[in-house]
Order: sequence, then C-alpha cells, then structure tokens
Amino acid sequence: MQKSLSVYDSDGSTFAPLVVIELVSETKEEAIAWLLNRVRDKQQDGGDGDGFLSMAECQYIIKHELDNLRAKDEAHVPGYPKMKLYPGKSVIRRMQSKGILVQVFPLHEKEELKRLSFSWFKKIKLSFQPLDDIRHYFGEGMALYFGFLEYFTLALIPMALIGIPYYLFDWEDYDKFTVFAGFNLVWCTVILELWKRLSASLAYGWGTLSRKKAFEEPRPGFHGVLGVNPVTGRAEPLYSNAKRQLRIYLVSVPFVLLCLYLSLYVMMIYFDMEGWALMIHDEEPTFWTGLLLFIPSIIYAVVIEIMNLIYRYAAEFLTGWENHRLESTFQNHLVLKVLVFNFFNCFASLFYIAFVMQDMVLLRQSLATLLITSQILNQIMEAFLPYWLQRRRNKKAHKRMIKTMEDKELPLSEQVKLEADMSTYLGTFDDYLELFLLFGYVSLFSCVYPLAAVLVVLNNVTEVYSDAFKMCKVFKRPFSEPAANIGVWQLAFEAMSVIAVVTNCALIGMSPQVKSYFPESETQLIMWVVGFEHFLLASKFILTFVIPDVPKHIQIKLSRLEFESLEALKKRHQKEPVYKRLTYRV
Amino acid sequence: MQKSLSVYDSDGSTFAPLVVIELVSETKEEAIAWLLNRVRDKQQDGGDGDGFLSMAECQYIIKHELDNLRAKDEAHVPGYPKMKLYPGKSVIRRMQSKGILVQVFPLHEKEELKRLSFSWFKKIKLSFQPLDDIRHYFGEGMALYFGFLEYFTLALIPMALIGIPYYLFDWEDYDKFTVFAGFNLVWCTVILELWKRLSASLAYGWGTLSRKKAFEEPRPGFHGVLGVNPVTGRAEPLYSNAKRQLRIYLVSVPFVLLCLYLSLYVMMIYFDMEGWALMIHDEEPTFWTGLLLFIPSIIYAVVIEIMNLIYRYAAEFLTGWENHRLESTFQNHLVLKVLVFNFFNCFASLFYIAFVMQDMVLLRQSLATLLITSQILNQIMEAFLPYWLQRRRNKKAHKRMIKTMEDKELPLSEQVKLEADMSTYLGTFDDYLELFLLFGYVSLFSCVYPLAAVLVVLNNVTEVYSDAFKMCKVFKRPFSEPAANIGVWQLAFEAMSVIAVVTNCALIGMSPQVKSYFPESETQLIMWVVGFEHFLLASKFILTFVIPDVPKHIQIKLSRLEFESLEALKKRHQKEPVYKRLTYRV
Repeated sequence: MQKSLSVYDSDGSTFAPLVVIELVSETKEEAIAWLLNRVRDKQQDGGDGDGFLSMAECQYIIKHELDNLRAKDEAHVPGYPKMKLYPGKSVIRRMQSKGILVQVFPLHEKEELKRLSFSWFKKIKLSFQPLDDIRHYFGEGMALYFGFLEYFTLALIPMALIGIPYYLFDWEDYDKFTVFAGFNLVWCTVILELWKRLSASLAYGWGTLSRKKAFEEPRPGFHGVLGVNPVTGRAEPLYSNAKRQLRIYLVSVPFVLLCLYLSLYVMMIYFDMEGWALMIHDEEPTFWTGLLLFIPSIIYAVVIEIMNLIYRYAAEFLTGWENHRLESTFQNHLVLKVLVFNFFNCFASLFYIAFVMQDMVLLRQSLATLLITSQILNQIMEAFLPYWLQRRRNKKAHKRMIKTMEDKELPLSEQVKLEADMSTYLGTFDDYLELFLLFGYVSLFSCVYPLAAVLVVLNNVTEVYSDAFKMCKVFKRPFSEPAANIGVWQLAFEAMSVIAVVTNCALIGMSPQVKSYFPESETQLIMWVVGFEHFLLASKFILTFVIPDVPKHIQIKLSRLEFESLEALKKRHQKEPVYKRLTYRV
Repeated sequence: MQKSLSVYDSDGSTFAPLVVIELVSETKEEAIAWLLNRVRDKQQDGGDGDGFLSMAECQYIIKHELDNLRAKDEAHVPGYPKMKLYPGKSVIRRMQSKGILVQVFPLHEKEELKRLSFSWFKKIKLSFQPLDDIRHYFGEGMALYFGFLEYFTLALIPMALIGIPYYLFDWEDYDKFTVFAGFNLVWCTVILELWKRLSASLAYGWGTLSRKKAFEEPRPGFHGVLGVNPVTGRAEPLYSNAKRQLRIYLVSVPFVLLCLYLSLYVMMIYFDMEGWALMIHDEEPTFWTGLLLFIPSIIYAVVIEIMNLIYRYAAEFLTGWENHRLESTFQNHLVLKVLVFNFFNCFASLFYIAFVMQDMVLLRQSLATLLITSQILNQIMEAFLPYWLQRRRNKKAHKRMIKTMEDKELPLSEQVKLEADMSTYLGTFDDYLELFLLFGYVSLFSCVYPLAAVLVVLNNVTEVYSDAFKMCKVFKRPFSEPAANIGVWQLAFEAMSVIAVVTNCALIGMSPQVKSYFPESETQLIMWVVGFEHFLLASKFILTFVIPDVPKHIQIKLSRLEFESLEALKKRHQKEPVYKRLTYRV
C-alpha cells in the first residue's frame, strides 16, 4: 500500500483537493513531516482567487510552486542521508529522481468532468467541440490539440467531397489525377496558413497569445557536475555542450541511420513478398489468391507500426541519454528523431513505388492498405487497449467496493486510489504524430487514391470521440500546460506540405495526360515540370509571408493593449525627474 | 531669404544647437510665436542627461518630441485659417505638408565630425571602420549599413582569392567552373547566417537588440477621412484598406508588369545590337571591330541604369499614391517594387544568355561589362555628382564669406545656412540596393567570371570611402534611426541566395564536365541535378534553422537580464496580497 497526501487535505476536507502527491509506502516519517512543512511554507498569505482562475490554471500554479520548492540549507532529504541536496535544488525533482516520490498528479473533478463529458462526446449531435470547456478543464495545450483535430477534419471535407466522385467515376482513368494533384497543392498550403490564424484567435481568447515564457528550469532527468548557472547565478548541475554534441553525432545520428537502413531492408522484404504473391496469383487467379495480394501490404503495415513503436522507445531513451538541460530542447530532439524515422518508415515504400517503380496501381493498393491498417491498429492501441487494461485492473478493485464508482459520491481516499492507478497520459506527442502521418498520406499521394481523404475524415471523427473518451475516462488527469500555438508541429506540418508540393508535381509530370503534351522531348517535359514546381514553391513561401499569422482584429486588440500599457507607464513616470527615470532602464 | 529658428537657440547660445527647424520666409509672426510656445511647453522639467546619451540619441529624442507635438484645441495654425488642425494632429507634420515648414534637420557638430572623419576615411591605414563612433554620430541604422558593407567586403575576399587563379589559369576551361559554383553555393548561405549573428552582437552592444517598437504614427503623406484610430482612440485620418488594395492590384501591379515588359523589350534590342556587332566583326575582324563587340553591352548597361533610376522615382510616386498609413509598410511596398524591377532589369539578360542561349562566352563578356559599367556609373552618380553640385553652389556663398569655412570657427547662423543648403540624404535604401545587385552579380553567375568577386571587393573598398565622405561632407546630417538589424534587406539577400542555389545548380548541370558523366541519357542528368538542387535547398533551410541567429554568449546575457528583471518584480510584489497582484495583470 502507498500513503497519499494531498496538498490541502491536512487542513480538513472543506477545500476541494486539486493535486495529489504520491510517496512510496516505506517513506520515513521525518521526510514526510519535512516535506509537508516546506509545502506549507509556500502557502503564506494566499488570498482568494476563487472563480478568477480556471481549475486547470490553479493546478498549473500548484505544480509550478511545487517544482520551485527549493532546498535551502538542507544537505540531504531528512531520513535519507544519501539523497543529497544543495541550495537551490528542486526538492520534488530530487525526491522523484531518487524514487521516494512516485508521482504528483491533479485530481479529477467529478461534477465538472461529468458536465464536460456530456457536452463533449456523450450527446450524439453534430456540433463543434466545447473547446472553451476543454481548455477550462485540461488547459490550453490540450484544447489546441482538439481544436487542431477538429479543424483538420473540417479542412479535409472539401477534399473528401471531391474525392468521392473521382473514386466512383474515374477509378481507372489515371489521366484525371493531375487536377486532383493541383487541388492538393493549393489545399495543403492554404489550410496550414488559416490554422495559424485560427489558433491565434483561440489563444487570444484564452489569454495565452502574447504570453512570455518564464525562465526554464532544468528537466528532472538532467544531471551533471554542480556548477553555477550563468543566467540565474544559482547552483545547478552543468553538462558540457561539447560532450552532448559528441553523444548526438557519434551515437544518436548513427543509430537513427541504422534504423533507417533497417527500415529500408524491411521494405525490400515487403517488395519480395509482393512479387511472390503476384506470382502465385498469376499462376492460379482465383478469389483466394486475389485476396492474397493484399496480405503483404497488411503484414508490412503491421510491421511498420511495430517498428515505429519500438523506435519510439529507443528514441526516448537516446534523447534522455543525450542529457539535454531543458524539457523543450529534449522535446525538439525527440520530435526530430521520431519524425524522421516515422516519415521514412511509413512513406519510403510509397515513394519507391511511385517514383522508382512508377506503378500507379500498386501505389494505390499499397496506400489504401497502409492507411486502413494503420488506422485500425492505432484506434486499438490508443483507446481500446488502455481502456481494456484499466477495466481488468479495476475489476479487482470493483469487487471490493461494489458500485461506489457509479453515481454515488465516492469518498476522497477511494477516488485518489482509483485515479492513482489510472495510466498516465504522456502528452499530445503521439496524437499529433498520428495526425502528422495521416496528413502525409492525404497530401503526398492521395491524388492516386482519392478515397484517402474520406477515410481520414471518418478516422478523425472517431478519433475525436476516442481521444475525448480516453482523456476523461482512461487516463489520470494531466497537468494543464499553457500554450499559444501547436509549437513544433506547425513546422512539421509545413515541412510535409513542402514535400507534398514536390511529390504532387512529380506525379503530375508522370501522368500520361501531361506526357502527351511533350511527345518528342522528355527533357522538355522535365524542365517544364521542374520550372512549375519551383514557381509553386516560391509562391508558397511568398504566400506564407503575405498572409498575416494573426487576424487583423486581434492585431488591433493586441497593439491597443500595448499602446495603453505604454501610455499608463508614461503617465506614471511623467512627474518623476529624469535621473530617476534612467535607473528604470536597466 | 529664410528665417531659421533652432530649438534651444532663443535661450542664448550657451547650449549646443542640435536640430534646426526651417520655416518659409513669409511665415506669419503669430504662427512662429505659437510654434515656439508649443515647443517650449514640451521642455518642462527636463533634467540633465549630458554624456549619458549619444548626440544621435539626443537628436532622435528631439525629433520624436517634435513629431509628437499635437494640436490640442487649435482649429487651425494661427495666422493660417486654411491650415486645419484637430485634436491629436501632429503640428509639425501639418505645417510640413502645407509647406510653411521647409525642413527639420539636425546640425553637424564640427569637432566630433572632424574627429570621426579622421578615424574613418582620412587616415590611410588598413583598419576596420570605427563603427561605434559612427553609431555615436549617425545612429544605429547607419552604423549597421557600414558594418554590413565592411562585412560583405571581407566575406568576398576568400572568393576573390580563389577567383584570381581561376581567372589566370583556367580562363578557357569551362569545365572547372563546377567547383567554383559549388563554392558559391555554400558561401552565400553561410555568410548571410554569420552576418545575422554579427549584427546581433553589434546591436546588443548598442542596446538596440531587444528594443521594442513604439506605436507607429501615420506617415506624413498619409491622408483620409477623419475618424478614430481603433488602437489609440485618437482622431486620425482613416483610409479604407479595400481602396488601397484596389489601387495596388489595379494600378501598381499592372504598371510594374508593363515596366518589366519594357525592360524585356530593351533586352531584345540589346541582343539585336549584339548580333549586328558580331556580324560586322565577322565580316572584317580588326581591332576596332573587336572593340565594337563591347559597345552593345556598355550601352545596355547605361540604359539599365537610366531605367532603374526612372523606375525608382515612378515606384516612389506610386507607393505614395497607394496611401499607406505607416512608414514601414510604405517602405516594404517600395522595396518590393524596386527590387523586383531592378532584379529583372539587371539580370534578365544574363539569365537569357545562360539558360536559353547557353552561350558561356557571351555570358562572361556580358557579366563583366554590366558589372564594370554599373560600378563606374554608380560611383559617379552617388558621390561625385552631389559633391560637384554642392561645390558649385557653395562657390557663390564662398565669394561672400571668404575662408570662413576653413579651420576658423564659423558663426552659428552661417553654419545653419550652409547646412540647410546641403542635399538631403534619403536613407540607406539606395546604398543597400546597390549592394544587393552586386551580391547578385557575385552569387548568381560569378562562376563563369571568377574575377567578379575581385571587382566587387575593389568597388566596395572605394564605396566605404565615398559613402563615408558623402555622409560627412556632402549631405545634411540625417536624423539617427535606432535599428536592431538591417531589416527587410536581410530577407532580400536571403532570397537572392536561394536563387543563387538554383542558378549555380543549373550551371553545374550544363557544364560539359558533368554532362560527360551521363553520356547516354540527358533525362537522367537533369533528374540528378534537380535532386541535388532540392537536397541543397533543403539543407539551406535546415542550416538557417540550426544556426542560432544570436550568439550563445549574448543569448545568455539577454536571458540573464530578463531573469533578473522578473526576480526584481517578484520581490517587489512579494508582500502585496493576491487581489492587488491580480489587478496588475490587465
């Protein structure tokens, strides 16, 4: 059994408990008493901010305060002489890294959650998601993810609508796909630009748009020789950048390259299997051998998913080992590693089929199988598996306290125990990654398989529900994270849309329709296609510059805010003599 | 004759006069008295900032205060019932646009100027420019221009050093230019990235790096129906954006296209002349007809310069007529118009020769003639012509007061009169434009004429001297402008370097050396070159991301500053209760 202690609980239960700190069962009493004291020190003269802050914001503040609980003159955690501390070291992080603090997590709020669930995924009605409520409960980062998911789905609808007649009437007419490729080109540039504006509007409404980043503390896993941080002047572990670069370039990069090579090797096996299935079908063309044609693609899709999963863990381990000081740099390096591999792993075979084999029938078949298989696998892995695991775990608990989980009020201690056992949500990374790959399937090659957009729309609709369900029912409540935009993912999606321009131009150039315009000279055809592609890329970059990232009316509001605060500052300083004013400049 | 009044002059001459306001001769006395009063109102309790601010900063502050001298309840300028005013209207701007205020300009400071001139261009010694002194006297904008000019010259030296042996030994060996083209590629990407870092270092030293832009007032020429500015809430002319867009797309864009067409037409005439000269030379190959071969290029170069000049005025007129509210948008639209035309006008013929005619001998000859002719013309237009004009004007003044301009102390009134007659420096626009075109000549095609870098280095060295000379001796002292970087020009140079990647790759692909690797299939050659080019472009963008724009040690200093100010704020607010803290958030 584990002891649980909630920040406010010790004062009596009139407060709504917000955050849980879980310590291991055999924690020494003196360590607990010391930690409690230190936490209470922070509480000082708090004041009452009821209703002013959203619950997510309150929990974020508590997390921030806990993370900033720093050792003063304690040399070690009381009761644990080996858990060294030094002035300025974050207490929670040390206890966490040494394993006596199991986890810190915010509690669900039953009433709010019920209301949110109802308006979000329980009523069966065609409507937008309650983004403001999601933001209120889960914070801006999560709300932006769901906002993006919804936007992406809506943006796909025109493509899906165009795709259906294409699929129904022009199935074998490869010539027609140039129009569709042209549409793809414009579409993927425009929707990303518009998303930036929408995201700015959302973030403005939530007050995070012009948010300044606070000074970033070292991430929990960061270690090094104790030194002085040049920015804060505080004692802090330091780790030489040269060593980190060595680790990155001598270990991580070769590892990623090796994985890419492996992925290439698996791809070649897939092509062998493909050829072998085709051979059998050619020898004996029955319904069953016709079905056999799809088997290699399905197996390959499953293998791709498994490789992605294994690589994901390896990348996380490696990036941790690179020992980045900041969580943000860690995330960037992780995202880069994972993106490169997943992109290669998922799309290499399609590129090979499209541009080396130039086999449009196989491309269509392969794309369809990959897309459908990966969607099915993802839905299983993402929502049903954790839910099933949790259900199995809960069954045991269920036997002990029958029906307490239902509508009746659960005692706080039981709620804490229940939620402590739930899986931890690891952030929006995997959800964005999935959208990124879907965006790739749709934008890179969908002109040869116009139904892709329809499939992705269907997937996204169920994704909204399953993601909402898993956030509310399957996972521990995550700490909210203020966010002004979707960060590095905007960049990733934009990079994908640049690649999409290249592939679509190449597909257009390869279409018999376009080839017929240049019956004599293939060179001239290529020159025209390349010229056209350069023109499109240039227009794309110009468009990115020309469309303002923040809508006009929000720009005006922002500059009004800034103007007013400047004017207020001027008034305040008006009567002070100059020499005093000057001291404020430093 | 004109009356002159200097801001501080009326108190007696113990102050060093900084800025001159020149009114037309027949200005009514009551208007003068009113303006003087209004200026003095601003002077309030000023305090003493001697030595703390550079002279350029003092003049900038005076200019800012003058620009912000706003009408209160005056309905018109006293004495001029037709010069309407309304509360909040800038007085100086109205008087300037109505023509009773001729100009406002800062005065030169003889002693400082002498010292600066000496260390800058009078001593003949190989050394860096005194950028800090230039910044002190002329402000950051000007200092950054000279910093960039110097940096660009130094960056060209390795290229010039490689170019000389190429020129001497491989003059006719076209195969060798692939290595040089490859060098070009890397060079133009790297130097622009490094400049960003250098510029950040300079701006950090001058305190302008993290400078916030103040709210921008409408530019003097802006007109419209009186309304309320949504940001400031002040009365201000408003002009509908839709009308402006109509003017841009229905008039300006067609005009620019027409000019481009005209430029193309002139280019075709040049090629006709070229063919005609070649014909004569072929018929009768003497020394004189050999010389004739260069005549078309020289005439074309002169015509290009004249067209650029005329277009420059037209673009300024059109952009003014588009009626942009802000000086910065005006500048951006002007820069865009001028850049597009100048780029086309200067380089279209080279592109045509290189990629349509594929005549490397003509390309080399044409490039050399264009480059040399335009350099000579520019030096004449830029420094010698204004200097000569000024000398001629001064001769008359000279006769009246012999030798007063020499070392003896000039009376203030004479100095003001002399400087008021000097030409006005119109900003760094034309200087940057010249560098931009030189950068184009060097980066786009210099692999076929390796001596180009040498010529540009020589040109830049004289440019430093002639620019320094014209700033100190020929022009009125300009108002200083704080700047953190070279602004839109960084973008322009980067765009040029992207185009350079494309042209250099194409030149490599066209070289016989590379062609010999693909003896059978031209298609394959093109595919490889295109693939290589895409790879280079991608690396270029990745490099731009990877190289931080601000050097590490300055990043640390900046975040230290921010951290300390945050900590100071925390301490100040620590004892205040929460509800009071919250009111600060708005």
